[in-house]
Amino acid sequence: MLATSMTASTVFGAQGIADVNHVRQLIRQGVWQSHTSGLAGDHVQGNLVILPEAEANDFLRFCQRNPKPCPVLAVSEPGQPQLPTLGQDIDIRTDLPKYHVWRNGEMVGAISDITDLWRDDLVSFVLGCSFSFEFALLEAGLRLRHIDEGKNVAMYRTNIPTQAAGLFHGPMVVSMRPMLAKDAIRAIQVTSRFPNVHGAPVHLGDPSLIGIADLQQPDYGDAVSIKAGEIPVFWACGVTPQAAIVQARPAFCITHAPGAMLITDLLNQQLASF
Amino acid sequence: MLATSMTASTVFGAQGIADVNHVRQLIRQGVWQSHTSGLAGDHVQGNLVILPEAEANDFLRFCQRNPKPCPVLAVSEPGQPQLPTLGQDIDIRTDLPKYHVWRNGEMVGAISDITDLWRDDLVSFVLGCSFSFEFALLEAGLRLRHIDEGKNVAMYRTNIPTQAAGLFHGPMVVSMRPMLAKDAIRAIQVTSRFPNVHGAPVHLGDPSLIGIADLQQPDYGDAVSIKAGEIPVFWACGVTPQAAIVQARPAFCITHAPGAMLITDLLNQQLASF
Repeated sequence: MLATSMTASTVFGAQGIADVNHVRQLIRQGVWQSHTSGLAGDHVQGNLVILPEAEANDFLRFCQRNPKPCPVLAVSEPGQPQLPTLGQDIDIRTDLPKYHVWRNGEMVGAISDITDLWRDDLVSFVLGCSFSFEFALLEAGLRLRHIDEGKNVAMYRTNIPTQAAGLFHGPMVVSMRPMLAKDAIRAIQVTSRFPNVHGAPVHLGDPSLIGIADLQQPDYGDAVSIKAGEIPVFWACGVTPQAAIVQARPAFCITHAPGAMLITDLLNQQLASF
Repeated sequence: MLATSMTASTVFGAQGIADVNHVRQLIRQGVWQSHTSGLAGDHVQGNLVILPEAEANDFLRFCQRNPKPCPVLAVSEPGQPQLPTLGQDIDIRTDLPKYHVWRNGEMVGAISDITDLWRDDLVSFVLGCSFSFEFALLEAGLRLRHIDEGKNVAMYRTNIPTQAAGLFHGPMVVSMRPMLAKDAIRAIQVTSRFPNVHGAPVHLGDPSLIGIADLQQPDYGDAVSIKAGEIPVFWACGVTPQAAIVQARPAFCITHAPGAMLITDLLNQQLASF
């Protein structure tokens, strides 16, 4: 039986979803192999990139130069599967529900445990994720159209270049959320407090100014409806580093599967800058 | 000889303009009777409203209900011309370059000293002014079109209602500054730190959504050019309380003359909320 055919409430019970240690144990045991959206309460979830040390050095420079799309929450020591600043108990080899394995820029497998692939030169990067700032926006009383419409957020390749580092380069990818102007202003205030999870928007208004021809044709995710009087608001997106990795074609790489994130011990509010 | 025919450098000397005590002394003596723009360095300047106690009670409630257009920096005790929280030496009867005197909603005089009009029931309100947040925007490296074009800022009556209190009511007046989206996002961050001087914008983008038909036809101030790719960004404006006072027609009222502000001992950075 695939865990992905279960519902979260079947596996965790209604009272168990907010207990991240319980959720992480069931993920570690392979019982839960699906997405983590809604499973972590107010805990920070992170994107995962694992690279051999040589490419990892380039990738860390790429993240340093592009902090809005690539906000680094933690980098492991080479060969060490622990990430103690994100959680005392985390083992990066087992604690995500599903991993994608890449060779030469091609996805070659989706597995729920990477222990057998582990090497002494692998470096793990955990990058901040929009779940954290969306949590803050919802807490602030704002509504998010893609959530209201039961869709994935709309994402677009832009003409905003990233700053290249070694192998890694490519355009910035952005996510878009339509809002009334007063809500957009509030959303800028709220997300500015969270620079480690993409921070303030990078653009708002006319999409053609950042190279987006048609908001109804996203490059990733789902188109959402835009109502009269709303403006599109664009945030730097964690798909940017994934796209850069695909273009860089490293010989070996492991990432999280989309939506199947690392659940950390940190609380979203701990990331607030003030 | 009218002081308004002098230049600031003639009166103060190039080195004297940043010394607010010197500037205030020359204003008190009646030597300088013109606008204070650029005369106060990084010191807070304020709008002035003086009302008899009965109307003052209504007006304070009006300000409390409309803090973005009417941010109160200080309210005097009835009959007291001092405002010690804004400056140990301030005498509100002499320390502005020019005052407007109003009776029944009509401006009946412009004078440089109101000592002869002083009464035991008069209450002074000093309201935050956009000079302070513009100082912060310029410090942040942003440019302001009306300054670059040597104009007054463009201001518009909107269809956003204020919350009435007693006699006082009317539409919110906003000032508009055109910016590229990335600068608008930065300007929201910068001005959010200054809630006592109008704070974050109240709107951006489509002016028709707040009842403005034509940006090139401002209700107050000067039209400015808007370049390709720029969006108009709208802040609540200190003209709002002035317009409410004109509509309320109090039997007696004194205000500053436009641009001829109270210079305080406070530094703009002291108003920053974080």
